[in-house]
Amino acid sequence: MPESPLPPGSTIGILGGGQLGRMLAVAASQLGLRSHIYSDEAATPAFDVAAARTVGSYADMDALTRFAGTVDVVTCEFENVPAETLEAAARVVPVFPPVRSFAVAQDRLIEKDFLTSLGVQVAPYAPVDTLEDLRAALARIKPPVLLKTRRFGYDGKGQISIRAADDAAAALEAIGQVPALLEGLVRFEREVSVIVVRGQDGELQFYDAVENVHENGILAISRAPARISLSAGVAAKTIAGKIAEALSHVGVLCVEMFERTGERPELIVNEIAPRVHNSGHWTLDACLVSQFENHVRAICGWPLGDTARHSDALMTNLIGADAEKWRALASEAGTSVHLYGKTEARPGRKMGHVTRLFPKS
Amino acid sequence: MPESPLPPGSTIGILGGGQLGRMLAVAASQLGLRSHIYSDEAATPAFDVAAARTVGSYADMDALTRFAGTVDVVTCEFENVPAETLEAAARVVPVFPPVRSFAVAQDRLIEKDFLTSLGVQVAPYAPVDTLEDLRAALARIKPPVLLKTRRFGYDGKGQISIRAADDAAAALEAIGQVPALLEGLVRFEREVSVIVVRGQDGELQFYDAVENVHENGILAISRAPARISLSAGVAAKTIAGKIAEALSHVGVLCVEMFERTGERPELIVNEIAPRVHNSGHWTLDACLVSQFENHVRAICGWPLGDTARHSDALMTNLIGADAEKWRALASEAGTSVHLYGKTEARPGRKMGHVTRLFPKS
Repeated sequence: MPESPLPPGSTIGILGGGQLGRMLAVAASQLGLRSHIYSDEAATPAFDVAAARTVGSYADMDALTRFAGTVDVVTCEFENVPAETLEAAARVVPVFPPVRSFAVAQDRLIEKDFLTSLGVQVAPYAPVDTLEDLRAALARIKPPVLLKTRRFGYDGKGQISIRAADDAAAALEAIGQVPALLEGLVRFEREVSVIVVRGQDGELQFYDAVENVHENGILAISRAPARISLSAGVAAKTIAGKIAEALSHVGVLCVEMFERTGERPELIVNEIAPRVHNSGHWTLDACLVSQFENHVRAICGWPLGDTARHSDALMTNLIGADAEKWRALASEAGTSVHLYGKTEARPGRKMGHVTRLFPKS
Repeated sequence: MPESPLPPGSTIGILGGGQLGRMLAVAASQLGLRSHIYSDEAATPAFDVAAARTVGSYADMDALTRFAGTVDVVTCEFENVPAETLEAAARVVPVFPPVRSFAVAQDRLIEKDFLTSLGVQVAPYAPVDTLEDLRAALARIKPPVLLKTRRFGYDGKGQISIRAADDAAAALEAIGQVPALLEGLVRFEREVSVIVVRGQDGELQFYDAVENVHENGILAISRAPARISLSAGVAAKTIAGKIAEALSHVGVLCVEMFERTGERPELIVNEIAPRVHNSGHWTLDACLVSQFENHVRAICGWPLGDTARHSDALMTNLIGADAEKWRALASEAGTSVHLYGKTEARPGRKMGHVTRLFPKS
């Protein structure tokens, strides 16, 4: 079943050229592998650290086929890649993670149905295609609730909160009358996420759960490890492993959860991302083998690397103008500065991150 | 005096495209900086991770001038770069480390005289230009001794041992009748090295001294920290700092020393390298800011980064066929594998290294 590993000197193809592609390419280089980046943008962060670059549309099947012909495996740094794009590459070389992981993660309804089928707890939800659907759903799942587009949501985009049943029509209008999902609001103590990596031979490795703080729908801070109980930590990893196995996933997968404490502590899965994830950036500085290297190892059929944490970590995103503080941040002790090489610091844009290390707790 | 720091988005030019250039380019990318590599080889490890590449001779002043025109600062990954090469670049952009650091490190006689002038202890030595010089020197510095070429020696090349005065003529013949240095053999307990980094503003930061084991003249293992006394550790850093200051060095400098224990412990400087160094590769995995990142910070006028060690480390070079063990090494816990992307595993060629981490002692 597992293919023989791609030897050093092989080339990985990465669809997408953002900071995740950039950090994947760097991790690949550490293992003696080359990267070829495919992006629909002419100037993009990953191009600066890649052995080869292709600028092309994700709908250009000829360009994708040529690209796939130059590499030994294809992976992806963003989850909203069209299925046809992955399939075009997969006709030429192996593609990891598998297409199914993307299909599930791209559609909130398929995702929720899939998680429910695994016995994983999710927020109450209902599909919404029409105003009638929405009204019926609101009768069952009481406001305040969230109305989310089924597809193409990330960083808080494609969602709106509904505070009263009367707001139904306006909310459906606001998200563009597209197929949607109504989601009950989960009251939680904290947001946690687990980065799991699964190899081609089914080997599973986990990084310790981290605790995340979002601001304006965008990840602001990850704290490793999360301040949760040992049993909650094991439960979080068990859920992530179950999902990775059910998808026959290969590579890194991030599972975001809400922790509800109380008499019976619960973990409610919010969403999954079939890729390296912002809440795993701390692994670059606090682990011997980062999420990026382990993703590369998995897609290349290598043995997975050690996910143990040598230090505790606090990762803070640099959003928009935050990156202007680079000089002050660079002079802080115990701090590692990561900048993504983006020239324009638009508001809400992830420009970099800093990791602060602390002795292991 | 210090120039204002080069902001993220700037480009560093690196003369030389080997593994040191590759790791410098990766470190630069982490800070949002781009790299342009200049190499006289058409395919070389650093090209795989650089935003721009130039293939040209180090004697091609026009090509070097054009190269320098595309970058904001020039540095060098090897010490035997011709002075004219550095000067050609320096007419266009700042060059760090300064030309003097290279001039001193490139010539064993100038190096020894310089170290002696600082009051730093070195092995007994004598310049040798002729057989008469050599015979006279051998009368003063008794065999066994080493005869070394003054220039272009590295990894044990350009040197031969003399066990008896009668071998003088043959030894001079063996090293090619070039200007040379006779060096008394130092009996030592262990070899140690210190990586020091000096900023444009004179700030000095030190990594803890490491203990090195050479095999066939090539570094085999570095252990961090070295098993030396606290006072020897401070003395080693003091020597390294004194050398960096006397050179007005900017960037990383490695000082290799012999430790002679006994009633009065002594540190005898063997040689200096005005660049990132193999005995500092452990800093990639065991420190928050590696020697590569600190070199980039220094040459770009950034504040220097934290040199503290979060873990102890054992770095083992993968020489020649050693790299064939990559798969087994990749499956070892507590181990980080680094491969340099070299296609041909010639005997004696540095193909990669592995770092094993241990809890900090």
